[in-house]
Amino acid sequence: MSTENRIVLNPIGYVKTKAIGDEIKDKALISQIVVREELVDGLSGISGYSHLFVLFYLNQVTDAQRRTLRVHPRGRVDLPLTGVFAVRTMLRPNPIGLTVVELVSVDGNVLTVKGLDAFDRTPVLDIKPYDRWDLIGNVKVPGWWLKLQEEKKKALQ
Amino acid sequence: MSTENRIVLNPIGYVKTKAIGDEIKDKALISQIVVREELVDGLSGISGYSHLFVLFYLNQVTDAQRRTLRVHPRGRVDLPLTGVFAVRTMLRPNPIGLTVVELVSVDGNVLTVKGLDAFDRTPVLDIKPYDRWDLIGNVKVPGWWLKLQEEKKKALQ
Repeated sequence: MSTENRIVLNPIGYVKTKAIGDEIKDKALISQIVVREELVDGLSGISGYSHLFVLFYLNQVTDAQRRTLRVHPRGRVDLPLTGVFAVRTMLRPNPIGLTVVELVSVDGNVLTVKGLDAFDRTPVLDIKPYDRWDLIGNVKVPGWWLKLQEEKKKALQ
Repeated sequence: MSTENRIVLNPIGYVKTKAIGDEIKDKALISQIVVREELVDGLSGISGYSHLFVLFYLNQVTDAQRRTLRVHPRGRVDLPLTGVFAVRTMLRPNPIGLTVVELVSVDGNVLTVKGLDAFDRTPVLDIKPYDRWDLIGNVKVPGWWLKLQEEKKKALQ
């Protein structure tokens, strides 16, 4: 049965950043992705894109946290208890992070990117170009998501 | 060194579809994602979203294919040889597929989705909501990508 197979992956590189703690949530944060040197040919042509998906392994998530199935979004108990597949929490059975970043520059096996919310030395699993198929018209999100966004807007006013 | 660690994942479920071969590329294709029953609480609140990211394991990719570093997009030799991290080919060191799907319905541990380009019994690694942070303004893509899109448009005329 395919769902019982274990899947083994090796990182293609790792994240390099001086940001610590909540600093990684800053969408203006500049980080590096250092790709393993033997994989450098895999980056050919990547500078043709403005944005990339970065898939990374949340290696600080514990086994107990991987068993979490529902959370309050952003830890806020006034927001509904929500399944981990319905929120972008790092607590999930397979702790893979997915972030769209802006590609700032490419230098050999090192990508400089903007907006990567990953800690220093986080293993990177894959890099994929963001293309126009990924732009969805008419996106629907839950009420709690809109509420949080509204609060952010007010805080900036 | 974190990049040398092996990462072990267990599928959270699998894909169910009658589509075979190139039929999976049809963006109108309806498939199911059957989530492991013990993880059903992880789906709470997911119906609040219109679109999801599905991360799946491309288990038909061979070890030799995982070592491929450059390809011609869509196998077309008239398009530039491009690094695997700069194209959405299934040939990549960690063969993880990433597709944005439309959520059609939720029934217990089964999601019905539209536009999932994965074969029957493909292991699913993660499901994440697509939210408005994932909508990028002003996306730049390479010339070959635009050329392919132009060709598709002409074919439809």
